[in-house]
Amino acid sequence: MRILGIDPGFAIVGYGVIDTASNRFTPIDCGVLTTASSMPFPKRLKSLYQSMQVILTKYKPDAVAMETLFFNTNVTTAIAVGHARGVLCLAVENENMPLFEYTPLQIKQAITGYGRADKLQMQQMVKMLLGLAAVPKPDDAADALAVALCHGQSYKLNQKINGV
Amino acid sequence: MRILGIDPGFAIVGYGVIDTASNRFTPIDCGVLTTASSMPFPKRLKSLYQSMQVILTKYKPDAVAMETLFFNTNVTTAIAVGHARGVLCLAVENENMPLFEYTPLQIKQAITGYGRADKLQMQQMVKMLLGLAAVPKPDDAADALAVALCHGQSYKLNQKINGV
Repeated sequence: MRILGIDPGFAIVGYGVIDTASNRFTPIDCGVLTTASSMPFPKRLKSLYQSMQVILTKYKPDAVAMETLFFNTNVTTAIAVGHARGVLCLAVENENMPLFEYTPLQIKQAITGYGRADKLQMQQMVKMLLGLAAVPKPDDAADALAVALCHGQSYKLNQKINGV
Repeated sequence: MRILGIDPGFAIVGYGVIDTASNRFTPIDCGVLTTASSMPFPKRLKSLYQSMQVILTKYKPDAVAMETLFFNTNVTTAIAVGHARGVLCLAVENENMPLFEYTPLQIKQAITGYGRADKLQMQQMVKMLLGLAAVPKPDDAADALAVALCHGQSYKLNQKINGV
């Protein structure tokens, strides 16, 4: 099964593609989509939508996993990232691909077994689970691989629970 | 000039279409797009996007005016409406139509000359400016007409200032 993980954002969106087979995870690709703050914001949304279409078409994932937004503080940022996340979700839906959502807590628990794991612990686990020589850069790409791995782990767990 | 006003939302989106010529505003249509809370949220986003495409294609506005989001309190709601507003902006951008944004304060000031006008005062002004027999229902449709009128007023003002 191929999984695309997405770490949503407005200026920068992380993506990570992995393949899962039995108990192994294989890294396929990871990177970021960026939009320049000098662009008018509807054009930034269109750019994110089109770039996501390219990724979806290129990798044809069986499942897309996206982190939910969680903000305690800045509502303005929350709204801006909400706009971006909306068009990313639309791109996935328009390709008829199943979308799964995970909270930051769920992702940390799935990857490290510990909901309060810090960034460094998370990145080390991503590196280990995927057998990488180094932690992927930038952070948003590593975060996106973590989201994909979270779905892979949850999917395996659900298979076991359901006896499939 | 034809203006489409949009009052963004997730469960309900108001829209209002007006024509402007010299000092007159003519109402063309208004209504709401709705999405059922029972639908998975990516499908709700797709539904809003497609419905907005239909409106844009049907009325071919010269300008689209959309209210900005303003929330002091519920970040969760802000994020959900941000998602919806993102796909509505994308629909406008994908038709290459110019998008203008106005804050609630700007809309109230443009329509009533008073930034703290209440809903009733706003609705009465919308009714009067468009020569309607009654206040349009539901509120979201009337709000969308107010956004369209706000752009019409601002546009006229800018023309005067710029001596066009």
